[in-house]
Amino acid sequence: MNEAKLHKEGKWLFFDKEYIAEFVYGGIDGSITTFAVVAGAAGAHADIRWVLIFGFANLIADGFSMSVGNYFSSKAALDNYDKHEAVEYWEIEHLREKEIEEIREIYEAKGFKGKLLEDVVATIISDKKVWVDTMMKEELEMTRESKSPLSTAVATFISFNVVGFIPLMAYVVAMFTEVSPSALFPISCVGTGLSLILVGYLRGVVTNINKMKSIIQTLALGGLAAAFAYFVGEVLAKWIL
Amino acid sequence: MNEAKLHKEGKWLFFDKEYIAEFVYGGIDGSITTFAVVAGAAGAHADIRWVLIFGFANLIADGFSMSVGNYFSSKAALDNYDKHEAVEYWEIEHLREKEIEEIREIYEAKGFKGKLLEDVVATIISDKKVWVDTMMKEELEMTRESKSPLSTAVATFISFNVVGFIPLMAYVVAMFTEVSPSALFPISCVGTGLSLILVGYLRGVVTNINKMKSIIQTLALGGLAAAFAYFVGEVLAKWIL
Repeated sequence: MNEAKLHKEGKWLFFDKEYIAEFVYGGIDGSITTFAVVAGAAGAHADIRWVLIFGFANLIADGFSMSVGNYFSSKAALDNYDKHEAVEYWEIEHLREKEIEEIREIYEAKGFKGKLLEDVVATIISDKKVWVDTMMKEELEMTRESKSPLSTAVATFISFNVVGFIPLMAYVVAMFTEVSPSALFPISCVGTGLSLILVGYLRGVVTNINKMKSIIQTLALGGLAAAFAYFVGEVLAKWIL
Repeated sequence: MNEAKLHKEGKWLFFDKEYIAEFVYGGIDGSITTFAVVAGAAGAHADIRWVLIFGFANLIADGFSMSVGNYFSSKAALDNYDKHEAVEYWEIEHLREKEIEEIREIYEAKGFKGKLLEDVVATIISDKKVWVDTMMKEELEMTRESKSPLSTAVATFISFNVVGFIPLMAYVVAMFTEVSPSALFPISCVGTGLSLILVGYLRGVVTNINKMKSIIQTLALGGLAAAFAYFVGEVLAKWIL
């Protein structure tokens, strides 16, 4: 393994490929949500029209809630960071000695001692920004997310709806053309499978794991989820229809 | 605002309340997924039995995929951290001078210079663990997640299914008793609303934002998502049924 190359890939991940992660997670969730409707309907031998009604109802509702939910969490994480940072600024003014002692403990743990330790502490606390940054990273282990909550939400919404539409596509076409109803579920499986291969590949890129492993995991996830939905549809239909 | 108290709450958040976050996000997603089925069905005037078939198919499939998906991402994040850490250990052996220079630049940026800077660099690089930890935090801005991927997944699955079952509850009861079908959607709205108030409150605790704001956001999210699903169900039903 070329370690330096791997490392570079990781950096590329952190700085440039930001929104591929949203595409990946929005896409997987959108795909599995509508594929569950399709598979449940196939298990229950439900009419195409119910697939469309429940498929689109879930696509719009879940896509909206996932993306707006993401917006709220990213926003809350940023606000939380800023709040803790403000608390640290407040503490270095009002609890100065305690905060100096915390810096001393942090650097003592790194192996500093004696006069060098005191000099390091004096340098850190001579710059309030450096002082607070040190507390944020070393004491609270917090780093500030650089992505914009709004762009995160928009990327998630688009991806959820675009990839999530794929399992429903054959059913939409079937409303306007002469497609045998029994062909629809197999066509949907193939289309969904192909889209999960693409999304699985990109997931491998984003999470920096082996691409083939990521594709297999993603396909297994979608396939098993659909199998559960099919089974539930089949069992419930026999029981209550 | 009592700053010290706020700060303490934040710490409490980071160390003890770990899995409440999974309960919150699993619960919101589960609730909105099945509530979308219920609302879409109400808009389309669909039979109770379709609500149950599509509701449970989505509950099981999405709950499975969300929790296993979470497992894969948390696992990948841990593996990714470990991989980068291994690269850093490799680099301090094989690209020693470059890595020493990086430590020097990190501490120069903190305001260290001259002999003190050299002494600091010498102390940091005298301990490989401290050296690598510094690179991870300061150069890559990575911290290692302390939660177990498996516990994360299990907490998400349970919460998704328990909270996600609430919108369907009235429909299950209606299969065995004499409940007027027109009462089911209102009952489901009330039950879902109450569960979203609880989950919204806990979301406020987890994300450290105002509890009332969090409750209102969560209710608005679920309410709007259901309104979209209702609208889609109503429009599609008029068009294709």
